Amino acid sequence: MKNFTYYNPTRIEFGKGKEENIGKYISEYEISKVLIVYGSDRIKKNGLFEKVASSLRNNKITFEELGGVQSNPVLSKVYEGIEIAKKKGIEAVLAIGGGSVLDSVKAIAAGAKYDGDVWDFFTFKTVPTKALKIFDIMTLAATGSEMNNYAVVTNEKTKEKFSFGGPATYPTISIINPELQSTVTKEYLAYSAADIFAHSLDLYFSASYLPEYIAGYIENILNTVIRTTEILLVNSKNYDARGEFAWAATQALNFTTFCGVENNRFDTHFIEHTLSAEYNIAHGAGLSIVVPAWMKWQKNSLPERFERFAEKVFNVKGADAGIESLIKWYTKIGTPVTLKEGNIPEEDIPMLVDKLLIIAKMWRAESLYTKEMITTIFNNAK
Amino acid sequence: MKNFTYYNPTRIEFGKGKEENIGKYISEYEISKVLIVYGSDRIKKNGLFEKVASSLRNNKITFEELGGVQSNPVLSKVYEGIEIAKKKGIEAVLAIGGGSVLDSVKAIAAGAKYDGDVWDFFTFKTVPTKALKIFDIMTLAATGSEMNNYAVVTNEKTKEKFSFGGPATYPTISIINPELQSTVTKEYLAYSAADIFAHSLDLYFSASYLPEYIAGYIENILNTVIRTTEILLVNSKNYDARGEFAWAATQALNFTTFCGVENNRFDTHFIEHTLSAEYNIAHGAGLSIVVPAWMKWQKNSLPERFERFAEKVFNVKGADAGIESLIKWYTKIGTPVTLKEGNIPEEDIPMLVDKLLIIAKMWRAESLYTKEMITTIFNNAK
Repeated sequence: MKNFTYYNPTRIEFGKGKEENIGKYISEYEISKVLIVYGSDRIKKNGLFEKVASSLRNNKITFEELGGVQSNPVLSKVYEGIEIAKKKGIEAVLAIGGGSVLDSVKAIAAGAKYDGDVWDFFTFKTVPTKALKIFDIMTLAATGSEMNNYAVVTNEKTKEKFSFGGPATYPTISIINPELQSTVTKEYLAYSAADIFAHSLDLYFSASYLPEYIAGYIENILNTVIRTTEILLVNSKNYDARGEFAWAATQALNFTTFCGVENNRFDTHFIEHTLSAEYNIAHGAGLSIVVPAWMKWQKNSLPERFERFAEKVFNVKGADAGIESLIKWYTKIGTPVTLKEGNIPEEDIPMLVDKLLIIAKMWRAESLYTKEMITTIFNNAK
Repeated sequence: MKNFTYYNPTRIEFGKGKEENIGKYISEYEISKVLIVYGSDRIKKNGLFEKVASSLRNNKITFEELGGVQSNPVLSKVYEGIEIAKKKGIEAVLAIGGGSVLDSVKAIAAGAKYDGDVWDFFTFKTVPTKALKIFDIMTLAATGSEMNNYAVVTNEKTKEKFSFGGPATYPTISIINPELQSTVTKEYLAYSAADIFAHSLDLYFSASYLPEYIAGYIENILNTVIRTTEILLVNSKNYDARGEFAWAATQALNFTTFCGVENNRFDTHFIEHTLSAEYNIAHGAGLSIVVPAWMKWQKNSLPERFERFAEKVFNVKGADAGIESLIKWYTKIGTPVTLKEGNIPEEDIPMLVDKLLIIAKMWRAESLYTKEMITTIFNNAK
């Protein structure tokens, strides 16, 4: 067990009807003006927005609103939110949506308390120590953003998809009501499953030391995702499966999987972020292409870990059989496993490699990401 | 998945040498005077006390001290601590020890901010909403007290062993350095393992609804405890095993196992607390007697859960085989499994039953704990 600090102050309110208490929850912090941020108009048509607005009004909380956040959320929308927050004296930001909306909200919350350009946080120029309070109502489970302090945003001008995190950007309260997630399409359910897998496997297959307790903890997350995804693809209204899927997503990136681990890396996310910045492919779809390709590159450095994965997650023998089982499972649930299936031109590989090497240099991670490594991984994804 | 709230603000500082930073950690909260509470003089002889004192002095923190806390900690010692805290203007309480010391500290911290008798918290007269800040350095892993807000104390006059918990009694920072736990005797290691098992099994075998994710999560804790206990009984200095054991202990009672669960009960702890209050038997030893006896009483109401346990934890088939495997394992690691082995006179059973029925009435839990049930469980422990 390596030394670690674990601290996670986010309060989770999980279950049916919890969103109706949002006004009460926010008023516990003596907040009287919030900015509601969301994606499409769907939440206005299905009544969720009005339910939230009514709960806020009942608790004497006024609000501004900002809609139109897209998946692979963009910096220009964050700037819009910061401007509203600064002009209107906003005290807290409330996300209604999935990881993209919440990540935008985290950037808005930190940016509203910063005099410079919020992109400075993403390029490591400075770490935000202050932010407006953050609340969220999750309508999609995947990113785990509801119980961590990280946000990923795309600068659409530079086509850079970068992340930041600081002590001030943990959500204060996250509401997870599985019922609100039951209308997610089968396609996006599969992408979400691939995202949770990537959060887990990036760590599982890169850590130079992985406590056996954590290995078992991650395998339990993966087995839960496999079991509940298969139930939900048949019956999208299965509440318990939807709930377990959502809770597994939260656990996969609330840093409980990091405890005692040594030298874990986030290779597949590092590589995928450039795919979704370049082609606007769904993040989960990009990950199901990159993860098996990366595993093929990585397998020889941790043979026992790969054998364990094969046995504990897919009940097969040997590293290769484990990787093949994962590829088959991705195909079964309907998420792409090759560049071609993701509509990414194979002839773009050299350009993608060059782009990743520039980012690696900026992040001072040249020693981790060599030209040979990235090229091999993309070739594995052909 | 049933509705739940999860919130746990305790910061864990885990690993080698972390105790040397205690002064720095406490000074982050602008605290200048603490009460150090501990058990035996062992921490003075082995240098731990001086290491802590020196770290406090280096950070300009003065301290008072209170030693002599025993296992099954008593109310009179809590009163002593409260008196010192009130008289000397103590701002935070620092526990150095195991669950008994930390539980005493929680009661002192809450009692110091309360004008009435601290025992009022234990008898449900009131819930503490304020407390001095709580810090701890754990020298024994078992109770999970380092990451929850509960405390168990024995009123030695009335022989009542009761608990309380409130929003103010989460530790602010808990230090878990496995090296400090490596001198625990084999006997107490076994009792600790039995305590962690009981925290897990009380819930696992009583919940009327247990999400499969949580079932797998608990089984991973139990398998970790089995594996690491067996390593430590052979080699008490195995750091990684000691670390995983400690972290499993924390996870077993930081309420992560409660998420989404319905109607879980704490039967074996309820029954055992009266044993250790009456006979001053080690809490873990009492639990290894009560748990299998309770499982025999409980098994028919949740047959599939018992079959799953047998398979996932002991790799055997059938409920009875699972219970027998647990009894054998307790015997193997050296913790008692019958009243006789625990030096508890069988002829005391009627008296113990009467006592438990009175407590059940006080806790308004008569419907859960009938005379027949408790008598059957004690008879199963003969």
